Amino acid sequence: MTDGKDVADWWRTAIIDMEPGRIHLRGHPVQDLIGHTSFAQIIWLLVMGEKIDGPRAALFEAALVAAVDHGPQAPSIAAARMAATCGVGLQSAMATGLNMLGDVHGGAGEQAVALYQRALESGPDNLAQTLNTWRMEHGSYLPGFGHRFHKPVDPRAPRLLALVDDAASQGAVGGQIAMIARAIERHLVQERGKPVPMNIDGATAVIYAELGCPPPLARGFFGLSRSVGLLAHAWEQTEQGGRNKGPTPPAYRWTYDPD
Amino acid sequence: MTDGKDVADWWRTAIIDMEPGRIHLRGHPVQDLIGHTSFAQIIWLLVMGEKIDGPRAALFEAALVAAVDHGPQAPSIAAARMAATCGVGLQSAMATGLNMLGDVHGGAGEQAVALYQRALESGPDNLAQTLNTWRMEHGSYLPGFGHRFHKPVDPRAPRLLALVDDAASQGAVGGQIAMIARAIERHLVQERGKPVPMNIDGATAVIYAELGCPPPLARGFFGLSRSVGLLAHAWEQTEQGGRNKGPTPPAYRWTYDPD
Amino acid sequence: MTDGKDVADWWRTAIIDMEPGRIHLRGHPVQDLIGHTSFAQIIWLLVMGEKIDGPRAALFEAALVAAVDHGPQAPSIAAARMAATCGVGLQSAMATGLNMLGDVHGGAGEQAVALYQRALESGPDNLAQTLNTWRMEHGSYLPGFGHRFHKPVDPRAPRLLALVDDAASQGAVGGQIAMIARAIERHLVQERGKPVPMNIDGATAVIYAELGCPPPLARGFFGLSRSVGLLAHAWEQTEQGGRNKGPTPPAYRWTYDPD
Amino acid sequence: MTDGKDVADWWRTAIIDMEPGRIHLRGHPVQDLIGHTSFAQIIWLLVMGEKIDGPRAALFEAALVAAVDHGPQAPSIAAARMAATCGVGLQSAMATGLNMLGDVHGGAGEQAVALYQRALESGPDNLAQTLNTWRMEHGSYLPGFGHRFHKPVDPRAPRLLALVDDAASQGAVGGQIAMIARAIERHLVQERGKPVPMNIDGATAVIYAELGCPPPLARGFFGLSRSVGLLAHAWEQTEQGGRNKGPTPPAYRWTYDPD
Repeated sequence: MTDGKDVADWWRTAIIDMEPGRIHLRGHPVQDLIGHTSFAQIIWLLVMGEKIDGPRAALFEAALVAAVDHGPQAPSIAAARMAATCGVGLQSAMATGLNMLGDVHGGAGEQAVALYQRALESGPDNLAQTLNTWRMEHGSYLPGFGHRFHKPVDPRAPRLLALVDDAASQGAVGGQIAMIARAIERHLVQERGKPVPMNIDGATAVIYAELGCPPPLARGFFGLSRSVGLLAHAWEQTEQGGRNKGPTPPAYRWTYDPD
Repeated sequence: MTDGKDVADWWRTAIIDMEPGRIHLRGHPVQDLIGHTSFAQIIWLLVMGEKIDGPRAALFEAALVAAVDHGPQAPSIAAARMAATCGVGLQSAMATGLNMLGDVHGGAGEQAVALYQRALESGPDNLAQTLNTWRMEHGSYLPGFGHRFHKPVDPRAPRLLALVDDAASQGAVGGQIAMIARAIERHLVQERGKPVPMNIDGATAVIYAELGCPPPLARGFFGLSRSVGLLAHAWEQTEQGGRNKGPTPPAYRWTYDPD
Repeated sequence: MTDGKDVADWWRTAIIDMEPGRIHLRGHPVQDLIGHTSFAQIIWLLVMGEKIDGPRAALFEAALVAAVDHGPQAPSIAAARMAATCGVGLQSAMATGLNMLGDVHGGAGEQAVALYQRALESGPDNLAQTLNTWRMEHGSYLPGFGHRFHKPVDPRAPRLLALVDDAASQGAVGGQIAMIARAIERHLVQERGKPVPMNIDGATAVIYAELGCPPPLARGFFGLSRSVGLLAHAWEQTEQGGRNKGPTPPAYRWTYDPD
Repeated sequence: MTDGKDVADWWRTAIIDMEPGRIHLRGHPVQDLIGHTSFAQIIWLLVMGEKIDGPRAALFEAALVAAVDHGPQAPSIAAARMAATCGVGLQSAMATGLNMLGDVHGGAGEQAVALYQRALESGPDNLAQTLNTWRMEHGSYLPGFGHRFHKPVDPRAPRLLALVDDAASQGAVGGQIAMIARAIERHLVQERGKPVPMNIDGATAVIYAELGCPPPLARGFFGLSRSVGLLAHAWEQTEQGGRNKGPTPPAYRWTYDPD
């Protein structure tokens, strides 16, 4: 015997409250949010449970804008385009691409936030040792630094960092994460004797960490951002047409290589 | 023998152009977009291939904001929450929910845009016949009208329509789609003798149609919008914990009903 | 106030019945099925709700075996391999590929079953007209016939048809669907003046239709079959290694084509 | 300049070789496999790259059969049923469920294979210490043992183990893994003073380990097996009908719990 409360409690949430004719998102009537809240702001509100405004909102928006696309060589974008030719809906094509994001593809942001937080806690003076320990645990690659294509500079990183500096000068964020991230970048130059510049994951992670996001949300927000590219590419492919688009033109075949 | 051009052409796109150190999105250097473009604006730019500004951008943003969540009774949101307890990444949990959006769940917006466009072409005087023809082709249900929960009014619809009116009074959109959508709503009242109010799909479809979106993008944009709720719920569930969360509390079992 | 029966009924099923220590699948104790039932047989039992044995089971098994893989030029297989390098689990990589199967990719089987059933109902004498009507409704392409790669013969089709003939000669299936499918094939030869041979979708659809499957299950069973290839390729790619495998070698870039 | 070999090599595989009219799977003409190979056997052939026959094939088949379904309280099955009401294809509904399998849901088999292999290497005499070390690394829960529902016995486990014993008595497998798994089970009884019986993950892992599978394939094979249940439930739900099926009957709502 039950009054249904156990069932309701099983799906309890602080995000949304509803009655017929009434929808509250994080305590705000939806009709008050519509028209007064930017899309970036409602993302923050819904996910983080608090409002974001002014320079902090601008920073968050910049991070979301910066990662929308990196072209069809990325497996996620390629998959969304291929899916768009297979007779599934546009949203399933997007989902196919989004589902490719994981520990490797789009996962470095989460790790970079964690790395920055640890480096900040240990202090700049202990940076070399912090990086050492990180590498012993996770391998030699430092998340957020280096790019196989954009050398010597990923154009998104300095722009994002400049915005962080602006926000810090206005007191909107602390700026210590940006400092520690740049210290890591300098450390890598010394170590390798050539630039290993901050990449998009590293730069957006600076913003997410400055704003106080838990590390996994760097991945979640990257997913939202890249979904824009997924939709754009899936739609462009839909308009280009094609059926069962494979990875290479149909004249190519794979090498059969029986070990 | 090939110079690789066929391979490059197979993935041709107008969305993004890249060289090492250079990323252009729809012809704009990414560093010029970052900090000067809202997240909603870059969604429009990337998907539609053109800039959106002022009251038109505000309308688009309002549509994106309005549909972010409708709670865990929606199968997409429930699935994202369940996935978050199964040991897959946050982005895969989001993808699981996004992949539930289809012809039925989140599909009415596309159909509503098409219905509005047809009703506009046929003209308001022929509305009864246009609706008749639509129903003969698609069944009695008119996409974008009626809600099993929000009666008599879905609070998002009048707010969105008011914003369309504002934009129309400024000449930013034509306003004819809003007119035809309201005519359909009045027609339904007369027909049924009770309100069958415009729902979120119907109201956002007014905006998408006023802005000139092809119908399938109503679904695509809905997918982006609802992805916000998917992330918020997947993350909240992650923090709540749980393992292999089923649809009902574990004490419940299904009815075995061997036909 | 509720006794929970409404919740249990919401998830009612005829497939499985359970109590602690007891699992019945379609009425059979699971421990009696294990070791006495082939994997193909339990697929049929679970999905169709009845046992399958002897030559009918062999036919079903042949259809499942025939479609397991067609190589990494297929978007589904390519996507699974790419996903395997992105840091998601093996099952998510499989799901990514499975999710690419839709109306176009792997969807022809369902349509072919429907076409055969209609051609059978109309009778062989009216075949030309049946095909005409089908084409007026669905376009000129007849599902299940023709292959852009395997010309003039898809090696799986004659083998599968021969097995249907064997089963028909034993009275295990009627054989009329095979007859009507071959009549369509002959009709296409006459029409085009060259062979348009039955393909894997057309040939497996003969089996599914002979066994009495509803058309959508041709797609479902194809999904199970192709999942084998998805797993094999995702696993091989996992062992080959790689990170963020794109559709072409990294040296290639796409053509930027701003319309 | 390229002859396309780099593109072909990028997709190299040992699984499949093709020319027009010719398809070889792991070196075997597909038409020779069809009708002579069971579905379970071709799964093994494609994934493992070698033939499997006789009692070993029977064991593998038993493991695949045992895990096909555990009912709609499992998030994967529930998700597939919900997806089937959302207007996506049957294969996408399956993919939605398959995509829920991860480290937690359906992931214990992989861990159990690894645990058994380690326990075997360390030897039965050192079992207590092996389990200790495992728990220090992975937490107190031992993968493959205990079930929140099936107490005191999961009916699938003793049946599967009996089949392993049969195969071992015929020399088809070594039987040491079964021995070590039972030793773990006895160890847990002593430790807890009550049975913590082997579950389906633990029992199928015995088979996969006896057959020499790498641990991740326990997850891959589980995915293939559970896909059967996903299809059966998605199809049953399709026939039951419904639109946008949520996790609970529509009359229920979630508890709003603003922290």
